[in-house]
Amino acid sequence: MMRRAVIMAGGAGTRLWPLSRADRPKQLLPLIGGASLLRKSYERLAELLEPEQILIITGAAHLDQVHEQLPELPRENLIGEPCGRDTAAAIGMSAALLHKRDPETVMSVFTADHMIEPVERFVAAVQRGFEAAEQHGDALITFGIKPTWAHTGLGYIHRGRSLGGDLYEVVQFKEKPDAATAQEYLDSGQYYWNSGMFVWRTETILDQLRRHLPDSHEKLVRMADAWDKPDAASLAAQVYPALEKISIDFAVMEKAPRVMAVQMDCNWLDVGSWPSLADVLEPDPAGNVKAAAQTMLMDSRANIIVADGDHLVATIGVSDLIVVHSSDATLICRKQDAEQIKTLVEQLKQTHEGKYQ
Amino acid sequence: MMRRAVIMAGGAGTRLWPLSRADRPKQLLPLIGGASLLRKSYERLAELLEPEQILIITGAAHLDQVHEQLPELPRENLIGEPCGRDTAAAIGMSAALLHKRDPETVMSVFTADHMIEPVERFVAAVQRGFEAAEQHGDALITFGIKPTWAHTGLGYIHRGRSLGGDLYEVVQFKEKPDAATAQEYLDSGQYYWNSGMFVWRTETILDQLRRHLPDSHEKLVRMADAWDKPDAASLAAQVYPALEKISIDFAVMEKAPRVMAVQMDCNWLDVGSWPSLADVLEPDPAGNVKAAAQTMLMDSRANIIVADGDHLVATIGVSDLIVVHSSDATLICRKQDAEQIKTLVEQLKQTHEGKYQ
Repeated sequence: MMRRAVIMAGGAGTRLWPLSRADRPKQLLPLIGGASLLRKSYERLAELLEPEQILIITGAAHLDQVHEQLPELPRENLIGEPCGRDTAAAIGMSAALLHKRDPETVMSVFTADHMIEPVERFVAAVQRGFEAAEQHGDALITFGIKPTWAHTGLGYIHRGRSLGGDLYEVVQFKEKPDAATAQEYLDSGQYYWNSGMFVWRTETILDQLRRHLPDSHEKLVRMADAWDKPDAASLAAQVYPALEKISIDFAVMEKAPRVMAVQMDCNWLDVGSWPSLADVLEPDPAGNVKAAAQTMLMDSRANIIVADGDHLVATIGVSDLIVVHSSDATLICRKQDAEQIKTLVEQLKQTHEGKYQ
Repeated sequence: MMRRAVIMAGGAGTRLWPLSRADRPKQLLPLIGGASLLRKSYERLAELLEPEQILIITGAAHLDQVHEQLPELPRENLIGEPCGRDTAAAIGMSAALLHKRDPETVMSVFTADHMIEPVERFVAAVQRGFEAAEQHGDALITFGIKPTWAHTGLGYIHRGRSLGGDLYEVVQFKEKPDAATAQEYLDSGQYYWNSGMFVWRTETILDQLRRHLPDSHEKLVRMADAWDKPDAASLAAQVYPALEKISIDFAVMEKAPRVMAVQMDCNWLDVGSWPSLADVLEPDPAGNVKAAAQTMLMDSRANIIVADGDHLVATIGVSDLIVVHSSDATLICRKQDAEQIKTLVEQLKQTHEGKYQ
């Protein structure tokens, strides 16, 4: 079997505005230290796989930036989506292409917007996932993160009996729970966070897509067949937007007959919003988290300060704010209102005709 | 008698950081509408005087910028200070120079950091001031602003009997009062705000400086004598910093034997700080005051938003903040902490070695 990994690097990263922008979304930004989230995702996988085995699926407009950040990858391993159609489309497109290149493929799927540590445990879990998918050819296998607190912002996986070591049957997928339920899940030890990372044979996921999203499946196969031909781009531009916009969880995982979970015992941190990014960084004694070269904070507590380049951010007497400076826009947002950033960017579309997005 | 007006345009404007900077202080900035405070000060006087009659004293480093903003003025009417030594030095230097050019001069003195409306009343008061100084050659005459509220941030002038129309004897200068005292002053109708604007014969003010600041007086006369000679700049660079750093109020006004006040019945607004600047501007329905081309304020109240150029300032859920964006620094400050901005700029000198000031 051919082992392959696909990193999904689509998504607008709107909640990280104004640093994350339509033409340079969060996964391509060096948010933490020098490397982008995408580059970090790649490097984790490179512990286990050769560059030729790693693919990226991203917005077609970002292919050049991805190529710059990952020069090791062969250009044919970069898949451009004409538009975002959620994870069922991104995974289906990747699976159809890989399957056409070699029907004997086991593919794993990863996201580009998480910090995962330590790398050794991540690598061990992915290794275990490949082996499980090779052994259980008819199964869809998800990576389950061992929860460390009663998170209410994630879906959960109810695991069943062990199938050997860290591989488990999946009893049921659970929607985001309320606080009490999340605590029950945590206490029981029988639940994982649903990571959105998977491993399976391309044949198996395509078969499930054919059953549950037949129209999309037909389109995906048609595009994969044409992929290396001259009219591929125009076909994709026409067909891709017509794919059903749905997550792989809703479309397939919750309906599939045989689902397993590999336990991934890692710190797994979403960095999809300013507060979650701040969780990854070390606060100063006053609780301020800074991703900015130049700051001067007086009598200021528990703020998140982000600035590009050498722009100075100075604060006096403020607390619990998110302050983000980019070259053409500055955001000042109460921490508790961080989810409203998405709305603000939506409104900018109306009022500023595409500027500042 | 020759009538002359001097606008003091020194000062760092630190409380308007980060827009006001060491190399471009507030009086040279177009803070309100198109014209700078200096230009507005000049235009008020130009209702009454010819360009040749108006002088500017400012930091030597800012002479070129002043010349650009006031091209009408002859270059010899721009006086450069090697460094700031408070108002006794600026007024003394101007007086010494004017007196040397013509001993029969009545000079008026104005500041460049206030909004004064309506112009007609301002002009009438200045006209009255010139007449009074010509009539009462031995008097120092100050312009007193009729108070409109119990301001505790200003000195007051206790006026005595009328000397004809809007000209009054001065009984006493008063330091900044507490709130109760300020209210008494307001209720009595016998007090003016001390405006820091004056009119007098150059001979008279120089005579008072000789009595009360003899060392500075000698230096001022020496520099004035050398002003048009080749070694003027090097002499000033050596002597000016040795002038006593003191206000004209402390040095002279409180001690002079004959002081009068001309009542100026104007709206007189300090625009020396962000809150006071905001008082001059019209708030939006949510109470936000904006001096910024591009803003997007969601669920935000009573903020002061200032940005240069087309930089977008977006806020969510914040209130009572001062947000000021300049090309290389951004300030976020609680309104009630506005006086701390000065401290912050002081600290920047230590930590950032002159950058961002």
